[in-house]
Amino acid sequence: MALIDDKSINTTPISSLGEFGLIERLTKDFKCENKTTIKGIGDDCAVLKADTNYRLVSTDMLVEGVHFDLAYTPLKHLGFKAIAVNISDICAMNGKPSQVTVSVAVSNRFSVEALDELYLGIQLACKEYHVDLVGGDTTSSLSGLVISVSVLGEVATEKITYRSGAKVNDLLVVTGDLGASYFGLQLLKREKEIFKENPNVQPDLSGHDYALRRQLKPEAPTKYLKILDKLSIIPTSMIDISDGLSSEALHISKSSNIGVSLYEDKIPIDYSIMNLATEFNLNPISCALSGGEDYELLFSITQNDYDKLKKDPDFTIVGHVTDVSEGNNLIANDGSLHPLKAQGWDIAKE
Amino acid sequence: MALIDDKSINTTPISSLGEFGLIERLTKDFKCENKTTIKGIGDDCAVLKADTNYRLVSTDMLVEGVHFDLAYTPLKHLGFKAIAVNISDICAMNGKPSQVTVSVAVSNRFSVEALDELYLGIQLACKEYHVDLVGGDTTSSLSGLVISVSVLGEVATEKITYRSGAKVNDLLVVTGDLGASYFGLQLLKREKEIFKENPNVQPDLSGHDYALRRQLKPEAPTKYLKILDKLSIIPTSMIDISDGLSSEALHISKSSNIGVSLYEDKIPIDYSIMNLATEFNLNPISCALSGGEDYELLFSITQNDYDKLKKDPDFTIVGHVTDVSEGNNLIANDGSLHPLKAQGWDIAKE
Repeated sequence: MALIDDKSINTTPISSLGEFGLIERLTKDFKCENKTTIKGIGDDCAVLKADTNYRLVSTDMLVEGVHFDLAYTPLKHLGFKAIAVNISDICAMNGKPSQVTVSVAVSNRFSVEALDELYLGIQLACKEYHVDLVGGDTTSSLSGLVISVSVLGEVATEKITYRSGAKVNDLLVVTGDLGASYFGLQLLKREKEIFKENPNVQPDLSGHDYALRRQLKPEAPTKYLKILDKLSIIPTSMIDISDGLSSEALHISKSSNIGVSLYEDKIPIDYSIMNLATEFNLNPISCALSGGEDYELLFSITQNDYDKLKKDPDFTIVGHVTDVSEGNNLIANDGSLHPLKAQGWDIAKE
Repeated sequence: MALIDDKSINTTPISSLGEFGLIERLTKDFKCENKTTIKGIGDDCAVLKADTNYRLVSTDMLVEGVHFDLAYTPLKHLGFKAIAVNISDICAMNGKPSQVTVSVAVSNRFSVEALDELYLGIQLACKEYHVDLVGGDTTSSLSGLVISVSVLGEVATEKITYRSGAKVNDLLVVTGDLGASYFGLQLLKREKEIFKENPNVQPDLSGHDYALRRQLKPEAPTKYLKILDKLSIIPTSMIDISDGLSSEALHISKSSNIGVSLYEDKIPIDYSIMNLATEFNLNPISCALSGGEDYELLFSITQNDYDKLKKDPDFTIVGHVTDVSEGNNLIANDGSLHPLKAQGWDIAKE
């Protein structure tokens, strides 16, 4: 009866479209008809009209075995992360988060105490970011844990930052540093393999606090918005970096109909990550471009705002906006141009 | 590392708490701190303050193998149902739905065409209920399909209906009729068993359109709110009937701190369901009380409003509100009292 088992018609594997292609295909015929809907699908959040400001909505789903591995992810950290990554989307619109709903599907291999741990992490994040848990659903699943979080927030209408506002000659800015979360994941995977081969070997994760923390308990970039507000800077466009700098720069390029030029030598990478890159024999720039899960912000500002943030170590100018005809490029240290690709998380060793 | 596999501490199975007990335990230490949060967890929706009205938020998760069986659930119907059941929660607050977000996790046994079907149903529901799809997430899962929907709506502050407003002597009213969805499910399960035993037998579902439609493509009760509005009736309390009349009446009882008396002979059941009950050897009243998935409304009104709706066949007065000391009872046709129980979906043959 269901289409899923019908071999008589030609079907297309989902993997052939990719995540963004799939969303585009599934939602292209949906029309918005409510006058309160300012912006539907296609940015970090949906934007809804309130009386004096805009309301923001975003949602994310985390699936065991796809987004996290409970062999090395403490449930408390997972709860925190589930909230933080959603708040990151509110930040990307220059907004302030206010409420979350959390739905959880769990199989019977989880105990109440396990869920207690998960919700302790959720609670920690709610306190940290001053958001209220206002609803949710708990249900059983046949296998594994699925967490779905929706977050609501607000932003003054004049302060909202879409992906679509970047203009030629704007500067491209990144908060914090990139790639660490990806290396944290590599460390955890390596120790899991060692443990599987010899369960008596204690995992050795010492000295890698930064990379591990960035992977296991990422922070939402709320603090940077406060600084931007103090500096009276409203970015012309903004996005949060969840899939790697390259993929996010391409989103801004597409939405703003401009080109982006990023400079290899400007990409901010923590010193501890440079050492790890050597240890893992990975190119740190590639990991910053395509590693993912950084939850930093990429935004564009007018050149007039340059002086305001040039001395703040929280921000790094990584490139600039060009005419769309120039394409999207990484300018390597030797001056050569490399087209940016949305590689996602699969990084070949280099 | 994770608590889920740690046998050295005493753990509590989730099933020992039940869904509502579990939610209560997990969220009891969460405090709301945003002044826009009017009502968090504990009703059909969260209630958020907007400038001139209240904003409503609700979320629900549907899990394959738990909430639906794709052996007999067409994906298009499932998409419709996922939206309708969420909108039902907005209705229960006397609100109007405006936007939805939909997150979907799918395993690789699903094709793009299968997801197309699911989203066709979602789109149908969005059109039917005039809501905009404004966001979501699509991700892979290791097994099966999980759908998480969040819905936003609005209600004038003076029209909102909580579960907590029922007063002694109020009348209890039910929309439409009850139990049909449960019988639809029994029919589908029976045909699945027959098919498993002999795949050459064609399923015989003819003559059962009503029960099947109520199970596979339930409507959200928006039309009843329009009638109530025309009749100038604002219920003193309201809840949607997703887990059976008994369970919902107990929610109103607990939230309003009152007792409820329901009359067996008043419970509305479609004539076609009476026949099915005989066929399945099930007590139709038990199925109406505990069957679930009706997505009708249970509400209370003051006696002053009785004349306004007494002649409308959309509504049935099923009982009245008593002092909390009288408890929650079904008054059988012979006058005997039976305490109401929240049985959920497990109905013993009688």
